[in-house]
Amino acid sequence: VPEEEERDASNPYANDPKRHPALKPSSSTPFNAEPPLQLLPDNFLTPNDLFFVRNHLPVPDVDPKTYKLEVGIDGASRTKSLNLSELKNRFQKKSVASIVQCAGNRRSEMVKIKPVKGLNWGAAAISNAEWSGVCLDDLLKYSGIDIDYVDCDHIIFDGLDQDPTGSKYGASIPIELARRLKRDIIIAYEMNGEDIPRDHGYPVRVILPGIVGARQVKWLHKILLSKKESDCHWQQKDYKGFHASIDWHNVDFSTVPAIQELPVNSAICEPVNGTSLEEGANEVTVKGYAWSGGGRGIVRVDVTTDGGKTWHSAELKQPDQPLYKTYAWTLWETTIPLPADTRDVEIRCKAVDSSYNVQPDNVDGIWNLRGVLSNAWFK
Amino acid sequence: VPEEEERDASNPYANDPKRHPALKPSSSTPFNAEPPLQLLPDNFLTPNDLFFVRNHLPVPDVDPKTYKLEVGIDGASRTKSLNLSELKNRFQKKSVASIVQCAGNRRSEMVKIKPVKGLNWGAAAISNAEWSGVCLDDLLKYSGIDIDYVDCDHIIFDGLDQDPTGSKYGASIPIELARRLKRDIIIAYEMNGEDIPRDHGYPVRVILPGIVGARQVKWLHKILLSKKESDCHWQQKDYKGFHASIDWHNVDFSTVPAIQELPVNSAICEPVNGTSLEEGANEVTVKGYAWSGGGRGIVRVDVTTDGGKTWHSAELKQPDQPLYKTYAWTLWETTIPLPADTRDVEIRCKAVDSSYNVQPDNVDGIWNLRGVLSNAWFK
Ligand SMILES: [Mo]
Ligand SMILES: [Mo]
Repeated sequence: VPEEEERDASNPYANDPKRHPALKPSSSTPFNAEPPLQLLPDNFLTPNDLFFVRNHLPVPDVDPKTYKLEVGIDGASRTKSLNLSELKNRFQKKSVASIVQCAGNRRSEMVKIKPVKGLNWGAAAISNAEWSGVCLDDLLKYSGIDIDYVDCDHIIFDGLDQDPTGSKYGASIPIELARRLKRDIIIAYEMNGEDIPRDHGYPVRVILPGIVGARQVKWLHKILLSKKESDCHWQQKDYKGFHASIDWHNVDFSTVPAIQELPVNSAICEPVNGTSLEEGANEVTVKGYAWSGGGRGIVRVDVTTDGGKTWHSAELKQPDQPLYKTYAWTLWETTIPLPADTRDVEIRCKAVDSSYNVQPDNVDGIWNLRGVLSNAWFK
Repeated sequence: VPEEEERDASNPYANDPKRHPALKPSSSTPFNAEPPLQLLPDNFLTPNDLFFVRNHLPVPDVDPKTYKLEVGIDGASRTKSLNLSELKNRFQKKSVASIVQCAGNRRSEMVKIKPVKGLNWGAAAISNAEWSGVCLDDLLKYSGIDIDYVDCDHIIFDGLDQDPTGSKYGASIPIELARRLKRDIIIAYEMNGEDIPRDHGYPVRVILPGIVGARQVKWLHKILLSKKESDCHWQQKDYKGFHASIDWHNVDFSTVPAIQELPVNSAICEPVNGTSLEEGANEVTVKGYAWSGGGRGIVRVDVTTDGGKTWHSAELKQPDQPLYKTYAWTLWETTIPLPADTRDVEIRCKAVDSSYNVQPDNVDGIWNLRGVLSNAWFK
């Protein structure tokens, strides 16, 4: 037996899927990777093979013939169990265009201030897809549960991904948020009209529009309504936001709530940093994305080439979604004058959401030990 | 007839109510005034006579015996009309603790950068009260309207306040927001357990938790479900947010949506600016408020006495409201060390809401021609 295969046999990542060569890994085991930033504005719906990948553990290899999804209430004995064909055939199919964004998107900008613990993500740990599947509301009703009246405080989602010790990925959201999102939460079995690829949760993942990627559990096998939050590491001891004077010696993860809805964010995708503009050019076309959590739409993206002395409003390519239920991203574009001396231009952007929340000016004020929620003005 | 009374006869403000002498007017006709900032943290519910006053027009003198509230659908002939005793007796009474904040709160900090058009508010154009009255949802049902299915896009609220030409105050909210708020919108006839004072809308105003004060129409006399927004000046040509390069020559009010939900904000109420600290003091107790729109609770208030080198988490006095339906403010307090050389200490605070939205670092990036949405780090 060649050495290579011997190593593979003991490597829990040996059975991970093949990936598109354009994806730039920030980690290979588990596999985490983002597409080239400049490709993002090319498609309102990111192609499946270019969608950023965020795995916490090895990718499970789920047999669609034996797959089951369990739905129940914590402590109650009765549990519904549905196979894949029941999910596809017993319920009306519903679609929602929604981004998934990692809490660590743009972490690499935070690292420049002071080191943090986490993958060194650029600004492309975000992608947008149309997800299709069953309304969580329909699935719960079918399981005898009325989301508006059930006496529970959290909905726990458990995944099939696990580490060699058997420790599994899971997450939860407060029932308040589930009630607000109601029919917009999708138990998805399709991504952009195809089976969900293995890296994105085949055969089934939960889509929670407006909420951080970490709760949108992939390889979903259990939905549990509970009085308690998920006790998973990533719910309890990670994905929370602290101020810059909290470090690994004094952090107490119980003092702040788990990140759920994300704040407003935006980035310039084109031109990428370091691009040489044409000699004598007196204007530049700038493209990017903007998005906010909680269904808040984007009302403005401001762009400057002169350090904020003059701002220009970008043209917004609005998704066809209501202003307070905007789950997809807003791509934007603008062609603006370059300052006379154009040898070194720094282009910046900042977005405003429908609650008129803005991005902070600098990274310094939002630096945190886990490098999450990095949403300062992009430059 | 003495000159004084002659002037009064032609003065539409002559019949305005008497006000508490502690209120500091930013304008006397119409009357606009805020309480002393340092009094705000004394009470979770601001006493009625110290509640900040924001009037756009003279205060109407409404006779409770003849008062009527009309409810209808734009274009439909049938309208419900209810008198005050019907409002009080036909429906279950519901209460909600909710702040009202002027879009122009903290405008005086924006003015320091560049002049703006608007009242020179300090940081106390915000107050918190318990409002009681009828659920809008119940009132609409009683009027034969199901908010979830009615084919309308906006709810218009009209007030009885008008200028000498007969032009009236009015506002509207998107039906999407009304559906989300659902049973939390109150047609209020009580403020902190008393009749609503004249300055605050006697006998009836609408309370729209999480939404800017300007839409919470006082002296409410008509609720109209419509395909269109309110055509009132303050809905169309005011209370919108632009970037700093938009001035009165190039502004186009149709390009951005009306302010509805407000962004996260906070202020230090004590010590007030200019306070002399005790000689040799090595710590200081700081008190303030924090609040965010859209029902988003406050998860953190960070305070610094050394220009942001060291941040301290304030103790939050949380209202008894769910994290994603927090309509009241969060008062906070912390006792923190003073730098060794304490001759001139600048204390700053910044708050984070449950969507992890933050306040911007500086006023410069959020400056706008109307001086609204002033929510930079407080100092
Ligand atoms: Mo993430
Ligand atoms: Mo206002």
